[in-house]
Amino acid sequence: VSELPECLEQLVRTLTRLPGIGRRSAQRIAFHLARSSPDEVRRVADAVAVLPEKLGPCEVCGNLTDESPCRVCSDPRRDPTLICVVEQPENLAAIERSGSYRGLYHVLGGSISPLRSVGPEDLRMAELGRRLEQGDVREVILATNPTVEGEATALYVARQVVPEDVRVTRPATGLPVGGDLDYIDKSTLSRAFETRHDLR
Amino acid sequence: VSELPECLEQLVRTLTRLPGIGRRSAQRIAFHLARSSPDEVRRVADAVAVLPEKLGPCEVCGNLTDESPCRVCSDPRRDPTLICVVEQPENLAAIERSGSYRGLYHVLGGSISPLRSVGPEDLRMAELGRRLEQGDVREVILATNPTVEGEATALYVARQVVPEDVRVTRPATGLPVGGDLDYIDKSTLSRAFETRHDLR
Repeated sequence: VSELPECLEQLVRTLTRLPGIGRRSAQRIAFHLARSSPDEVRRVADAVAVLPEKLGPCEVCGNLTDESPCRVCSDPRRDPTLICVVEQPENLAAIERSGSYRGLYHVLGGSISPLRSVGPEDLRMAELGRRLEQGDVREVILATNPTVEGEATALYVARQVVPEDVRVTRPATGLPVGGDLDYIDKSTLSRAFETRHDLR
Repeated sequence: VSELPECLEQLVRTLTRLPGIGRRSAQRIAFHLARSSPDEVRRVADAVAVLPEKLGPCEVCGNLTDESPCRVCSDPRRDPTLICVVEQPENLAAIERSGSYRGLYHVLGGSISPLRSVGPEDLRMAELGRRLEQGDVREVILATNPTVEGEATALYVARQVVPEDVRVTRPATGLPVGGDLDYIDKSTLSRAFETRHDLR
C-alpha cells in the first residue's frame, strides 16, 4: 500500500509507463511537480497534451511532423535520388543530428517481428515500393537497427521492395568511434574483427 | 538548430527541466508520447495537470496531502509523543516506506542554506515551535539529510526550536546496509570508522 496521496500515486504510476522511468525517478518527478508553481505544472501538462492534435506522419516519408510533407521532404536542397530507410522517427532525428546525410528518408514505423506479430504488411512497405516505382531513386540505405529484427527487416526490404536496378546499402557495423574495447559487447567485437580491412 | 517539429522540441525542453531527465531521456519520452494514442497522452497530461488543485501542505505537519490534516497526522495509531523532522515530503515518504517509524512528522520545506539564501524564517520552524509548546512531545528525531546543510539545519532546530526538556536525536550516519565498501564515499567511510562500536 502506497502512503502517497492518490493523485500523486496516480501520477507516479502514469510516469512509470514512460520509457526509461522507473518508480524511483517517477517519484522524484512527481514530488518536484507537486512543489512547482501551478503555471509550471500547466506548462508541462500542456506540452504533453498538444501532441496528438499537432503531430502526425508525413504523407511522403512517414516521419513525425507538424506539417505534411515534413521539413526534410519539402527541402529542395536534399538529394532526392537517395532514400534512407529507418524504423522510427527518432532514428531519423539521430541521423539528422549527426549531419552525415543529405538525402531523403522513409520511416517504416517499426521492424518485422514474428514475436510481436509485426509483419511487413504492418509497416510502411507498400508506400516505400510506390516511391521507388517513380524511378528517381538510385540508392536505398537500409538504416534499420543493428538488431536481429532490424537485420531481418533490412533483408526483406532489399529482397522484396527495392527494384533490381536500384543500389541497396547498409551502414557498417563495427566499433563505435571513441569506444573502449573493454566495454564493447562480444557480438560487435567479433563482427568488427570479421569485417576488418587492410590499412595498407 | 533542432530538426524536431516545434511542439516536440518544446516538450523536450520542458521535460529537461524535470529532475533526472537529460535531453536524451526527454527525447525518448517525447517520441514515445508522439507515438501513443490520444487517450494515453491525455491521461499523462491530466495526471500532471490535477496536482495544483488537489495537493497542498498539511496544516499540522507540512506534508504534501490531498486532505488536511494529512493521513499520518489524523491516524490515531501514530505515537503523538514523537516528532520526526524532515526537509521535504519525499523524505517523509521514504521513511514511511521503510516502515521503521510510527510517530508523527514535521516537514520543514527545505534546509538552511546561506548560498541559496534560505534562512530559518523561510522554513516551517515557527510551526514546529508551536507544536512543541503544547507539551505532549517527548522526543524530536532530526532526520534532515546527512549533508552540510541538513546538519546545519538539525543543529539549528536542536538549539533554537526544541525546548530544553524534550529529547533531541539524529539517525546514525554510517555504512549503508548491503553496501560494498569499495563503493562507499570517503566521508561516509571515515565517519563510520570514527563512530565504530565494540562488538563484545
